[in-house]
Amino acid sequence: MSETENELGTIAIIGGTGHLGAAIARRLAKAGCELVIGSRNADSAEVAAREIGADVRGMANRDAAAAGDLIVVTVPFAAQEATLSDIAPHVAGKVVIDTTVPLVPPRVMRVQLPPEGSAAVRAQALLGAGATVVSGFHNVAAHKLATDEAVDCDVLVFGDDRPARRKAVRLAEHCGLRGIEAGALANSVAAEALTSVLIFVNKTYQVDGAGFRITGKMVDSAPAN
Amino acid sequence: MSETENELGTIAIIGGTGHLGAAIARRLAKAGCELVIGSRNADSAEVAAREIGADVRGMANRDAAAAGDLIVVTVPFAAQEATLSDIAPHVAGKVVIDTTVPLVPPRVMRVQLPPEGSAAVRAQALLGAGATVVSGFHNVAAHKLATDEAVDCDVLVFGDDRPARRKAVRLAEHCGLRGIEAGALANSVAAEALTSVLIFVNKTYQVDGAGFRITGKMVDSAPAN
Repeated sequence: MSETENELGTIAIIGGTGHLGAAIARRLAKAGCELVIGSRNADSAEVAAREIGADVRGMANRDAAAAGDLIVVTVPFAAQEATLSDIAPHVAGKVVIDTTVPLVPPRVMRVQLPPEGSAAVRAQALLGAGATVVSGFHNVAAHKLATDEAVDCDVLVFGDDRPARRKAVRLAEHCGLRGIEAGALANSVAAEALTSVLIFVNKTYQVDGAGFRITGKMVDSAPAN
Repeated sequence: MSETENELGTIAIIGGTGHLGAAIARRLAKAGCELVIGSRNADSAEVAAREIGADVRGMANRDAAAAGDLIVVTVPFAAQEATLSDIAPHVAGKVVIDTTVPLVPPRVMRVQLPPEGSAAVRAQALLGAGATVVSGFHNVAAHKLATDEAVDCDVLVFGDDRPARRKAVRLAEHCGLRGIEAGALANSVAAEALTSVLIFVNKTYQVDGAGFRITGKMVDSAPAN
């Protein structure tokens, strides 16, 4: 494994048997990243892990969180609280990339935000100050990410810690997507709300997985590290 | 004036002496729309109106609201409450397109939403049920809209009334922009929050007025009327 591919360390995909988690894991594995797959059920995680690669391990979410250097949480909003409470003891000092979108079925085309203002801010509250939460991947259609095709969607990354945001940007890039730093964790509400908008657009204009692109010529402002 | 150009009736630009209002007014005038320009100060409105076109009238905001068939509100967040209270008696039965973004200086790169959840929902509350509020134009850089160049940004339109949303889509099209229906008025929070994200992106990546585009092949679902 090259130095570049391993720059993020071991990446734990919490909820890695779901549509989004499995799609991200598959792309990261193809990019040569070192992965562990977590699920509520360790057996399901092992099955999913074997499908992704011979050297990918599957285990219970909390064990995956303990094994990972970088944690990616890909669970439905309804499971966010239980999942984060489960892994909280194992993520102190780590960067946690939360992908949760606060969709409340059946009205998923309508923005319905949690009292904390966003799922990302809620994640930080649930995990405590020991973890460094960033958020991203709210707007990427999982069924498109699950293919080898190019996905016409940017990944907005939110967080109060710049090096942590840069890790999430790199993660997006390993998935073949453009990651864009988008400001404070509180700004995550923009991308989280946009998901309901995209679902509405899909239905209204018969689109198969609408996404979005930030326009304008950008100068990469990545720091030297 | 062609039938098509006049389909929206007389368009009143409330706050039409500001950067966004003047830019929208200028583009609508070029498209042949019938306009009145409103401002807190009637004299300023008359000056601005003469700059836009010989047959464009300028007047106080409340008079412009009374004269307009379709009302476009382009004032800063800090002026939203006073402006809407001023025009409220004159917009019953009319469609009001609110463009307000809840930016709270000096921290404009940080999303700071009003207690109502969005400026659009706040606008509806301020105007009362007699007016039909839709929102849009939150993400277009005014200095780009002020030119004759193509602007690489979509206009997301929010509202609970579909015919009203379609009017806002047509207004965007008259401005040379793609208008996209984006769901309920409550969804406006997505575009309003995105403005702070775009300001952050402008600064972080040295972009001159970042915008966004919805991706994916769309089928126009406009109704026959």
